Amino acid sequence: MSNELQALSSILDPDQISFTDADRHERSVDWGTSEENGVPPDVVVWPESTADVAAVLSWANEERIPVTPYAAGTSLEGNAVPLEKGISLDMNRMDEIYEIRPDNLQVDVGPGIYGDEINEAVGKQGLILPSLPSSGKISTIGGMLANDASGMKTVKYGEVADWLLEVEAVLPTGKVITAGSKATKTSSGYNLLDLLVGSEGTLGVITRATLQLAGRPEQVWGGRATFSALGDAADAIFDTIRSGVDVAKIELIDSISAEMANASLDTGLSNSPMVFLEFHANHNIEAEVEFCRTIFEAHDVTEFAVAESGPEMTDLWEARRELADAVDPFDPDLSSLTPGDVTVPISEYPEMVRYVKELGEEYDFLIPCFGHAGDGNLHYFVMVDVEDQEMVAKGEQISKQIVEKAIKMNGTATGEHGVGIGKQDYLASEHGDAAVEAMRSIKKALDPNGILNPGKVLPEP
Amino acid sequence: MSNELQALSSILDPDQISFTDADRHERSVDWGTSEENGVPPDVVVWPESTADVAAVLSWANEERIPVTPYAAGTSLEGNAVPLEKGISLDMNRMDEIYEIRPDNLQVDVGPGIYGDEINEAVGKQGLILPSLPSSGKISTIGGMLANDASGMKTVKYGEVADWLLEVEAVLPTGKVITAGSKATKTSSGYNLLDLLVGSEGTLGVITRATLQLAGRPEQVWGGRATFSALGDAADAIFDTIRSGVDVAKIELIDSISAEMANASLDTGLSNSPMVFLEFHANHNIEAEVEFCRTIFEAHDVTEFAVAESGPEMTDLWEARRELADAVDPFDPDLSSLTPGDVTVPISEYPEMVRYVKELGEEYDFLIPCFGHAGDGNLHYFVMVDVEDQEMVAKGEQISKQIVEKAIKMNGTATGEHGVGIGKQDYLASEHGDAAVEAMRSIKKALDPNGILNPGKVLPEP
Repeated sequence: MSNELQALSSILDPDQISFTDADRHERSVDWGTSEENGVPPDVVVWPESTADVAAVLSWANEERIPVTPYAAGTSLEGNAVPLEKGISLDMNRMDEIYEIRPDNLQVDVGPGIYGDEINEAVGKQGLILPSLPSSGKISTIGGMLANDASGMKTVKYGEVADWLLEVEAVLPTGKVITAGSKATKTSSGYNLLDLLVGSEGTLGVITRATLQLAGRPEQVWGGRATFSALGDAADAIFDTIRSGVDVAKIELIDSISAEMANASLDTGLSNSPMVFLEFHANHNIEAEVEFCRTIFEAHDVTEFAVAESGPEMTDLWEARRELADAVDPFDPDLSSLTPGDVTVPISEYPEMVRYVKELGEEYDFLIPCFGHAGDGNLHYFVMVDVEDQEMVAKGEQISKQIVEKAIKMNGTATGEHGVGIGKQDYLASEHGDAAVEAMRSIKKALDPNGILNPGKVLPEP
Repeated sequence: MSNELQALSSILDPDQISFTDADRHERSVDWGTSEENGVPPDVVVWPESTADVAAVLSWANEERIPVTPYAAGTSLEGNAVPLEKGISLDMNRMDEIYEIRPDNLQVDVGPGIYGDEINEAVGKQGLILPSLPSSGKISTIGGMLANDASGMKTVKYGEVADWLLEVEAVLPTGKVITAGSKATKTSSGYNLLDLLVGSEGTLGVITRATLQLAGRPEQVWGGRATFSALGDAADAIFDTIRSGVDVAKIELIDSISAEMANASLDTGLSNSPMVFLEFHANHNIEAEVEFCRTIFEAHDVTEFAVAESGPEMTDLWEARRELADAVDPFDPDLSSLTPGDVTVPISEYPEMVRYVKELGEEYDFLIPCFGHAGDGNLHYFVMVDVEDQEMVAKGEQISKQIVEKAIKMNGTATGEHGVGIGKQDYLASEHGDAAVEAMRSIKKALDPNGILNPGKVLPEP
């Protein structure tokens, strides 16, 4: 195919094209997969404009060459990893802030900009993009939207895409569309905007996004609550959400996660289940914090410490903030399978957490649990010795059981990481065959030659 | 076709089928159109279950018979009016509350239930479905979702569909799918849920909806502000939204609307522009009201009266609440063209309002304006003598100019009424040809024989 790909040089400048092994291999793996899950693309290209993206897709569509959009590579389910070689379309150079419109609380950005960079820019005008994943510093807005990402603050502010008003996008045929509206509401035509969101770059490539912003809250308080029993912590979270307490973050970690964080950070804390909280308000934040404390006390909280935004609050959050980095060093023989991401209706959350703990005990596996508990979103690491094939197979079986349990509870296989390669097996059991068939017909309608991110989201028919 | 349609009696019971003129003609007209816009269907059927809907659609798809979903008939753009005879699928009998799950703040309902009926049922458990259109008493949840409806409380609570978690729906081929998830967030598969929302019954028929609920706010205050100049009122609204004041409703009426309401209700108020406000909170509502008052005072408000929920608040809201009924009696010679529904980014709202007033003055037309100003949504009635063809033509030209102005301001032809028949001419100028082409390909993918609500939303190619 390499000769054929030389034609790219008539579309892009030489510094926008690379055939080097290093560039190709870097884009054959994301944070959730080992290299075997993908293959290196034949070529990496860096579009610098919508016209570049349109030209590449239009040509690739004519030539039937697979194109896999790529950005920061932080996806966890192989979402951006080529399965059929071809072109890796690296969006990192389209990282501009085009315009901030403070009067409308709106910003227009390129897809390759990191989430935190948006907040730095709009922050100068007292504005925030409220909902970003924890990886906002290292993941791009285009990737977040394509994967329908969310994060800690989703419990108050919704998903990232709940702040999306309009996109410009290039369809697999190379045609450029706008979807959505800069008006904050519209009922005009089919909702192509939310169809592109979460389609993981299989239906189109976002080249510009208009995001709604909010004013920065005047008061931010946060802290930590500790429990003797995980069930009490989960029940306290359930009651908090059900009571309508206005929490901006409500995060759970189990005792194994606590042990990992405590070991890594030397916190001096007990290895107990903990809940991390944050509150945002423009006035009277104490009332909300005290309302929450009352609920937690009814569930035998052993410590409830909340502080104003500042060093003390930062300290209280340390174990949660640094948790991801504490998992791998905990036991040098063990590392995690692809992190789990099930989400269930909030009333099922305590049972979901208990189920994962019981599986760990039953099979004697280390499965630290944590997550965006206020949304019913549970993350977990099934820890295995990757050299031990039997253990890996058993671990994968446990992961499967957890996802199947979540689906049985009216939950979802993936709350925020997307389907990619890793969750395709659950698509039909979660949505039904007819829904998957409808998704497939939409893919076929918009990408008749199947060139855009082939092999992702939809399982083989 | 009538003989062919007799086959319906093998699918449905006799009392689910009607060929009478009265039943057929009732469904050839909605609230926004005169009878000439639609044609009477050949037959009206009342499905009573998902299986009924699936059987009718499956058969109609085989036989290539047009099917137009219908519910309360309150749509304004001909959305539910047949253009090609065939079957009117009346969803009114599927009006059950299937289950309320207070632990998850969720309710499952049939599509034919009225919005206010849902709130009556869940209200017994202290819960609310917060966002409904003003027509919640007389319009069905299925129709609201199909049209992507919103209303007065959208400024705080979003659109009706922002509270939709999952639907069961029947595709044009008769296949039954579920879309969305009972988990409050998911990134699994293409977002068929929001594709069905706003598709105006052209892509599928919703047969069951799972809605998210909220706790009833403990404090509700509301009232009225009066201004000498419309520009001041619009500017005050703009500053209120930009400042992040937590308003639950913020409605504008111009002096002509005020005159109509005052004449009809004998309010004793001056014929001045007015803004109607509502605030919802669990504590400390006074702070928000006073914050708002300060902003309004900076824009020369002449009266600012707010009261706790009760008779006084009800009184303050009277002119806005009764406005729709006051328009037609105002001048017996005049009646309104299809009500306008443009929405623009909030910074353009004052200019949009001024533009409509100037057009009215320029052409000496009575054009009362009002609307959900906090969303940038402006409604207006272009008043004409329907016997005067020249005046009607001129009025339609004015309506067109208003919509084109909104689109030029990055706004939308329709904020909440949908496209139906009446707004198809603007689809391409608002979204671009490529986006309309993409919509058309999705319609073709899901409805290959074009049987479901044909002629709606998408203009002829």
